[in-house]
Amino acid sequence: MPYDPTKMKDWQIAEEAEKTMPTPEEWREKLGLEKDEIIPYGRIAKLDFLKIMNRLKDRPNGKFIEVTAITPTPLGEGKTTTTMGIIEGLGKRGKNVGGCIRQPSGGPTMNIKGTAAGGGNALLIPMTEFSLGLTGDINDITNAHNLAMVALTARMQHEANYDDEELAKRNLKRLDIDPKRVEMGWVIDFAAQALRNIIIGIGGKKDGFMMASKFGISVSSELMAILSIATDLKDLRERLGKIIVAYDKKGNPVTTADLEVDGAMAAWMRNTINPTLCCTVEHQPCLVHAGPFANIAVGQSSIIGDRVGLKMWDYHVTESGFAADIGFEKFWNVKCRLSGLVPNVSVIVATIRALKMHGGGPKVVPGRPLPEEYTKENLELVEKGIENLLHHINIVKKSGVNPVVCINSFYTDTEEEIKLVRRLVEQTGARCAVSEHWLKGGEGALELADAVIDACNDPVDFKYLYPLDMPLRQRVEIIAKEVYGADGVSWTPQAEEKAKMFESDPAYRDFQTMMVKTHLSLSHDPTLKGVPKGWVLPIRDVLVYGGAKFLCPVAGDISLMPGTGSDPAFRRIDIDVNTGKVMGLF
Amino acid sequence: MPYDPTKMKDWQIAEEAEKTMPTPEEWREKLGLEKDEIIPYGRIAKLDFLKIMNRLKDRPNGKFIEVTAITPTPLGEGKTTTTMGIIEGLGKRGKNVGGCIRQPSGGPTMNIKGTAAGGGNALLIPMTEFSLGLTGDINDITNAHNLAMVALTARMQHEANYDDEELAKRNLKRLDIDPKRVEMGWVIDFAAQALRNIIIGIGGKKDGFMMASKFGISVSSELMAILSIATDLKDLRERLGKIIVAYDKKGNPVTTADLEVDGAMAAWMRNTINPTLCCTVEHQPCLVHAGPFANIAVGQSSIIGDRVGLKMWDYHVTESGFAADIGFEKFWNVKCRLSGLVPNVSVIVATIRALKMHGGGPKVVPGRPLPEEYTKENLELVEKGIENLLHHINIVKKSGVNPVVCINSFYTDTEEEIKLVRRLVEQTGARCAVSEHWLKGGEGALELADAVIDACNDPVDFKYLYPLDMPLRQRVEIIAKEVYGADGVSWTPQAEEKAKMFESDPAYRDFQTMMVKTHLSLSHDPTLKGVPKGWVLPIRDVLVYGGAKFLCPVAGDISLMPGTGSDPAFRRIDIDVNTGKVMGLF
Repeated sequence: MPYDPTKMKDWQIAEEAEKTMPTPEEWREKLGLEKDEIIPYGRIAKLDFLKIMNRLKDRPNGKFIEVTAITPTPLGEGKTTTTMGIIEGLGKRGKNVGGCIRQPSGGPTMNIKGTAAGGGNALLIPMTEFSLGLTGDINDITNAHNLAMVALTARMQHEANYDDEELAKRNLKRLDIDPKRVEMGWVIDFAAQALRNIIIGIGGKKDGFMMASKFGISVSSELMAILSIATDLKDLRERLGKIIVAYDKKGNPVTTADLEVDGAMAAWMRNTINPTLCCTVEHQPCLVHAGPFANIAVGQSSIIGDRVGLKMWDYHVTESGFAADIGFEKFWNVKCRLSGLVPNVSVIVATIRALKMHGGGPKVVPGRPLPEEYTKENLELVEKGIENLLHHINIVKKSGVNPVVCINSFYTDTEEEIKLVRRLVEQTGARCAVSEHWLKGGEGALELADAVIDACNDPVDFKYLYPLDMPLRQRVEIIAKEVYGADGVSWTPQAEEKAKMFESDPAYRDFQTMMVKTHLSLSHDPTLKGVPKGWVLPIRDVLVYGGAKFLCPVAGDISLMPGTGSDPAFRRIDIDVNTGKVMGLF
Repeated sequence: MPYDPTKMKDWQIAEEAEKTMPTPEEWREKLGLEKDEIIPYGRIAKLDFLKIMNRLKDRPNGKFIEVTAITPTPLGEGKTTTTMGIIEGLGKRGKNVGGCIRQPSGGPTMNIKGTAAGGGNALLIPMTEFSLGLTGDINDITNAHNLAMVALTARMQHEANYDDEELAKRNLKRLDIDPKRVEMGWVIDFAAQALRNIIIGIGGKKDGFMMASKFGISVSSELMAILSIATDLKDLRERLGKIIVAYDKKGNPVTTADLEVDGAMAAWMRNTINPTLCCTVEHQPCLVHAGPFANIAVGQSSIIGDRVGLKMWDYHVTESGFAADIGFEKFWNVKCRLSGLVPNVSVIVATIRALKMHGGGPKVVPGRPLPEEYTKENLELVEKGIENLLHHINIVKKSGVNPVVCINSFYTDTEEEIKLVRRLVEQTGARCAVSEHWLKGGEGALELADAVIDACNDPVDFKYLYPLDMPLRQRVEIIAKEVYGADGVSWTPQAEEKAKMFESDPAYRDFQTMMVKTHLSLSHDPTLKGVPKGWVLPIRDVLVYGGAKFLCPVAGDISLMPGTGSDPAFRRIDIDVNTGKVMGLF
C-alpha cells in the first residue's frame, strides 16, 4: 500500500484490497453494530436502517461533507475518486469516517464505463458486486416499477373487454384511462435504445391494449427518485401510492393506488430501504444507496444513507451529481430541505484539464487523445478558465457554506499551474488543497483531509435559495439567475400554462423544483464553456412526479433511455469458470 | 406443532415457523459445512456448490426420491406439498433428509397463486423471500437475457448505420442479421400480456432498428433452461455462448458468442450457479434452485441442486413438473441422462378429487365451488378414474422404477374411497400410502415416509426410453405411444422438414428431446381426461435451443408470456411499514 495505479488496472487493485476486506461479521464488531443490525449478502451486507437509527437516535450527528465539482469535461473530473480520497485521507488522520455514494446503473457499466467505483488508490470495493447489481436494489426497483405497468396495461385490457357489471363482480370501478395520456413507461437497467419508443398490445383481446409505450433505464424510474429522498419505510410506502401513471379521459390523474398495486410494489422494494455497506481500498466504510438520474431527480445517494452515516461516524462524506449548478443546487435546495440536514463543508473538485477547457482549450472528446494544450503547461488557458471555478465557488457560498476546492491532480499538471489556481481560489476566501489520492490513496489526500477537517470547524449559516412557498416560475427565475448566471427565463406557452396550473393548485404546494438541464455547461447549451453571459434559460415543459413530489422544469434534452454504442464494454467482460471471478471490469 | 391449517393461513404458519428457523450460521453447524461453503443472503443463504462438491466428492450419494403426479385438475394435486411432506416424514423418522424444489416466478405469484411454497404443515419457509425473488437468481437471468437483446438490437442498428469500413474500425464484422428471423425476445418476470407482441425501434437512426419483437416471462428464458441442466460453471459458460438469437440473411444461426455478449451474460449469472438453502416448517433443509418452464424445458429444479443434495444428506427428494407423462418423462430421459443420476424411487401424487374427474366427474373450475361429486363418496367415479393413475404407474415402471403412490388426502375423502384406490394400486405391485402432511406435517406423513424408505431398498434397473442416437421422429413416436398412449404421430410438412434437417445435421446429435404438450391430459387435448384412446399426436413445429441443446417438438399451444387476470393477487399484497413485513401472500 498504496498500489501503483500506473501499473495496475483498477480491478487488480480491487482484487488485492478485497483479500483483506472486512467480512460482514468483522464490520459488525468494527462499527459496534448489534447482531440484527447487519444483514449479510455474500461478501457485503445491508444495514438495518430503522434499527440503527432507533438505537442511535440520541447520538449527535457527525460532520457532513458534500462533494461537488466544476463544470466537467465529457471525461468527468474524478468526483467519486475524490470522495473516496477524502474518506481515505480522513482515515489516515485517524478520524472515524465513512461515506455514501450512488449505486451505478447496468446501462453505463455494460456500455462504456466498465465500472463507476472511483479509480486507482481511491476506489470502492468490492468492485464486482458494486458494478453488477450489488444487493439487488435496482432489480427490486425494476420489478416494482414494471409491476405497476403490468397493472396498468392489464387494467386497460380488462376495461376494454368487460362492461361495468363484469368489472363490479371483481370489485373494480372503471378508471377510463386515456391511452393517449399514459405517462409511465416500463424500465430495464441497460442502455436499450431499441425500447425507447415501442408499440405494445398487438394481437387479440387477451394480448393487452394496443398503444404507444416506452422503456426508460431503471435508474431513471420515479421509484428510484423516491428511494433517494424517502426518509423511512412509511414515507416510501406513501409515495409509492401517489405515482401518476396516466390521466383518465376527463383529465384526472390515475395513480398506482388507483390500480391497487402500490402495496405489492412496496413489497418488492422492501429491502431497498436499507443501505449497502462497502468500503474503500483502504477499508474505511462507505455506504452505497440509491442511484437516481440527475435530471428528473436529485442525482445523488439517499437521504437515508446520509442520516445513518451521520449517526455512525464522526465525518460523513456524500457526493452530489455533476457540477455545483446541478448537483449542489439540488443537494442544497431539495435534499437538505427534505432531510433537514446541513452540510459543514462542500468540496468542489476541479482539474487543470477542465479549467483549460473553460479557458478556451480545444474540444475534449472521449476515446480520442487529449490535445497538447491539456498535457503541457498553459497558464493562460488556466487563468481564463478559472472563472468557471469561481462561479461554482460563488454558488456554494450562496448557501452559507465556504467551500474547499480540491485540485484533483494529474501527473501532467505543472507546479506553476497549480500555484496559479491556488492563488486565485484563496483570493475568494475559500480553502484550496491539491490531492493525489488516485496515485497515493489516503497518504496523497492528507492536505485535502486537513483542509476539510479545518473547514468543518467553521460556523455555517445555511439558507435555502428560495422558500418552498415561492411560486414555481419565480423559483426557476432565481435558480436561473443566481445559480446559472442567466439574464432571465423564457417559457413556451405550453410550459407556462402548466406552471400556472401547478402554482394555483394547492395539491402541488409541497412539491420540490427539480431542474432539467445539461451538466456540461452552466447554461442550457452544452457547447458553451466557462461562464456564459447574455443568455436566457428556455423552459419548454414541466414534468410532474406525484410520488417523488417533483416538478421538473425542462431546459434541456431529456432522455430516460441512453443508447448502447458500437464498441460496448460488455465485449470485454467474462468470468473465470473455475472461480466465478469476473474479469474485464475496469 | 403441528399448526392447525384449518384455522391458520399459510403465511401465519410460515411466520410462526420462521421464528425458530435456523440462521445461516446455525445451518453451517447443522450441515457440517466449512465457513466459505455457505454464503448468507439475509435470513437465507446460498451454498457454494463447487466447494462442497469438491470436499464431498468421495462420499457416496444418498437415496434419490422423485415426486410426480397423475394428470391433475386445474387446481393442482399438491405435488410441492407432498414433496415437503415426504421430507418432513423422513425427518420425523430420524433420517438425514433434504430436498430441492423450483423457484417460483413473479408472474403467477403476483397474478394468482400468491405463493407456491406448498401449504399447511407442509410448507417451505421463509415464505416471503421464497415468493419475492429469493436470492435474485431470476433477476440475474433476466438481466443476462436482456443484455443479449441489447447487444442484438444495438448491433442491428449500428450495422444499418455504418458501412463495413466503419464497423472494422471497431473490430466488428457484419453479422447481417435477418430482421424477419430474430428468434430471441426480451424477458420480464411478470405476466405482462401487453408485451407479448410489440414493435420496437421506432424513431430515428439512433433509436434502434424497427422490427417486430416480443417479451416472454423470465422463467421461460433459455438461460433458465440452461441453469436447470448445467452441471457446473464451465458447462453454463459454454452453453451461454451457443444461444441462437437470430439467423443471418443466408440462413446461418447468429449466436450470443457472435454478439460477444456471452461472457458478460455469464458475469451477470455468476451467482445463480449456487442453490439457495431454505427449509420446511419443521426445519428440514430444502434447496431452491432454477425454475424453468415445463414445455420448452425440463420444468424442474436443477441438476446442480440434486448433485449437491445427494452428497449432503442420505435421502434427497426432488420434484418433477406436472404429471408423469410430462414431468417424469423429462426427468427420466433428459435430466437423469444429463446428470447420470438414477432415482431410487418415484412417488406419484394422486387425489380422490382428480381420480373422480378422470372417471367422468363434472368440470373443475378454479374459483368456483367443487360440485357435490367431489365432496361426497362416489366409488364409481373413483373406480373409473383409476385408469389414469394406473397409466402413470405404468409410465414410471417403464424406467425400471417401482413407484410409491401417495394418496394426498382431503378431509372429504371417505375410507371406502381410499380402500378402493389402495387395493387397485397394490394389484399393480406398486406401494400405496395415504398421507396427511397438510393437516399434520411429518407426523401425518409417516406411512408415506415408511413406504419410501422401504422402496429405496428395492434394486432399480434404470433404463432410458430411447437411446440418444435414435432419430428425432422415431423418439417422438416412442414417447407418444409408450408414454402418452397415442396410436401414432402426425407431422405438419413444416415440422417434418425441420425434423429431417435436425436428424441429418450432426450438430444436433447430442440435443435432447423436450416435448411441448398440455399437462391437463395424457393427450394433446386438455379436455380429454382419463386415458384417451384412438388418437394421434399432432406435431406442428420443432423449436431449437442451441445453448440448452433442446429440440422441442410442439404438440400444444405454447405461450411464453402468461396474462394477468382482472382480479390479480397483487391487489391484496402490502407491507407493514414499521417492520417491513409483507402481508397478503397466501
